[in-house]
Amino acid sequence: MSKPTLALVGATGAVGTVMREIISSRADIYGEIRLVASARSAGKVLRVRGEDVVVQALAPEVFDGVDIAIFDVPDEVSADWVPIAAARGAIAIDKSGTFRMNPQVPLVVPEVNPDDARTRPLGIVSTPNCTTLSMMAAMGALHAEYGLRELVVASYQAVSGAGVAGSARLYDEIEALAGDRTIGQTAGDVRKALQNKLPEESPFPAPVAFNVVPWAGSLKEDGWASEELKLRNESRKILGIADLKVSATCVRVPVITTHSLAVHATFAGEVTVADAHRILNAAPTVVVMDDPANGVYPTPADVVGTDPTYVGRVRQAIDFPNTLDLFVCGDNLRKGAALNAAEIAELIVATEF
Amino acid sequence: MSKPTLALVGATGAVGTVMREIISSRADIYGEIRLVASARSAGKVLRVRGEDVVVQALAPEVFDGVDIAIFDVPDEVSADWVPIAAARGAIAIDKSGTFRMNPQVPLVVPEVNPDDARTRPLGIVSTPNCTTLSMMAAMGALHAEYGLRELVVASYQAVSGAGVAGSARLYDEIEALAGDRTIGQTAGDVRKALQNKLPEESPFPAPVAFNVVPWAGSLKEDGWASEELKLRNESRKILGIADLKVSATCVRVPVITTHSLAVHATFAGEVTVADAHRILNAAPTVVVMDDPANGVYPTPADVVGTDPTYVGRVRQAIDFPNTLDLFVCGDNLRKGAALNAAEIAELIVATEF
Repeated sequence: MSKPTLALVGATGAVGTVMREIISSRADIYGEIRLVASARSAGKVLRVRGEDVVVQALAPEVFDGVDIAIFDVPDEVSADWVPIAAARGAIAIDKSGTFRMNPQVPLVVPEVNPDDARTRPLGIVSTPNCTTLSMMAAMGALHAEYGLRELVVASYQAVSGAGVAGSARLYDEIEALAGDRTIGQTAGDVRKALQNKLPEESPFPAPVAFNVVPWAGSLKEDGWASEELKLRNESRKILGIADLKVSATCVRVPVITTHSLAVHATFAGEVTVADAHRILNAAPTVVVMDDPANGVYPTPADVVGTDPTYVGRVRQAIDFPNTLDLFVCGDNLRKGAALNAAEIAELIVATEF
Repeated sequence: MSKPTLALVGATGAVGTVMREIISSRADIYGEIRLVASARSAGKVLRVRGEDVVVQALAPEVFDGVDIAIFDVPDEVSADWVPIAAARGAIAIDKSGTFRMNPQVPLVVPEVNPDDARTRPLGIVSTPNCTTLSMMAAMGALHAEYGLRELVVASYQAVSGAGVAGSARLYDEIEALAGDRTIGQTAGDVRKALQNKLPEESPFPAPVAFNVVPWAGSLKEDGWASEELKLRNESRKILGIADLKVSATCVRVPVITTHSLAVHATFAGEVTVADAHRILNAAPTVVVMDDPANGVYPTPADVVGTDPTYVGRVRQAIDFPNTLDLFVCGDNLRKGAALNAAEIAELIVATEF
């Protein structure tokens, strides 16, 4: 069979940029690659696989002849355009939140539930939220052995989770505040210093430099943030545990890229640190960094830009039976977004083309 | 009775500086105030209550005639000198970790267990670790009404928890990295950029600018960090719950001052958000900031330098009965250190002098 044609929709964004790098550095399994973006970006020339490609404006015809279309666009754009791509015969892999909880759309992490990608009545496969993805390879491996029952999660989320504008805002804020060695010591001083130097409009609801902000996403019922509910609902769907108990608190931190999670995970039976290390070491895309005596644990700055899910600080909970506490880092633009979508595409190509 | 004589030991440090401000701004209940520090700082002139005071070198005689001595010095200095102060007749209020878990030393948060301060067979009262203190006023209020059973905590700890050197290091790192709008995007780039510009020695085991570091304190048994065990053991002692279940993961974040905690708290009976708000609003030193529809939740930058414990993001856990998820901020130098010690001293003066 001839090599499949790929369309990357949203090719100019933060994830789109990483997606082009990832597609360019992995096995070359595609024939034509089309880059698609909003009309504003049409005509731009971007590189993929070492070639210059002219960006096309999003239109129904760009999907003609496309086998696989990977979408990284806002929810409302996906809502409109993913079905159009599917109707034109493309298998649509969608990074947005629009279809993730649709029972007719599989939500896939290739290490965890690859078989789910085969059944897609709407022609759509969804890829999870970046926060959920940051831990999923690790939690999937532990679940397969131990049977996961409960998750209590606190996140340390990078600003690039809010796109290129998120990263730009943190760089801007740091530049505006650097050199003031009294900043961050008086209530409101960061906010005041930024008011004079930066536009009030920000991707974040509070200053993010010299700060942490306990909010990600939009307000849902009963005070929950959308990101916290995604982590709950998507974990249940990916792991296939309908009654998994999940509580999450999502917090933005002044890190450019790589989400971290403090995870308190309770399983069906007994767990030990040595055994958890064995399971995680055996998981192909998980790297264990867990030797605190020698200062070894994952941090965003040390793992950003790489593919694996990193796990450290694995401890047996002292007071909670069958429970591990651990710290996980994953690049939110790679495994958390572009890489997982690319892997879903590779999985489909390998098994169906 | 004449006004008591106070000695502040460790008057020149990060907490000592805040302590002098706090003593100067609250009701003036002391007679003489002596400032004490290491021999290196002796002879310095520092201000307290608007007066210049010459710093004295730590020596047994400085405690003669002292009624209350507040110590903010490293553990090993407290181990040597707190008993000397007590032997000379001072009531010693110690901020170090040395005596906190000693059954003959009360560990006191005035809002939670004020009566414990009355019985001190060694003449010593301990004040808790700053991370524990950041949440204790809030958790004490909830415990009094609901009966606390379990705590799962993830911390977002400020660099000034590591003293003046901790704050200096974050300012240094930010200055060294600001302006590079590619930093934090490639594994190890932050570390490499700092190597060329700053001394390798740091109060932190990894870069803290553009990063989070899942480590605080020293390595204890089974992979636990000392800070995580303190949070467990001190919470049990302060709240008087010998079998309280606690799991904590402590993480350093690039914030100068104010610790934040994501808390998952399980109680003996039913809880609601409205009722929790009522309890927390009634607690005199707790401020509820919980209106996410209007962007209201506590962040370190908005509350630093103030006294209360701030609580936001109060949610009823969806899958866990009798459980609240919440986000707490407290200034680690004020309530987390100097303020709590000052309040213990005030409590003792009010009831015993």
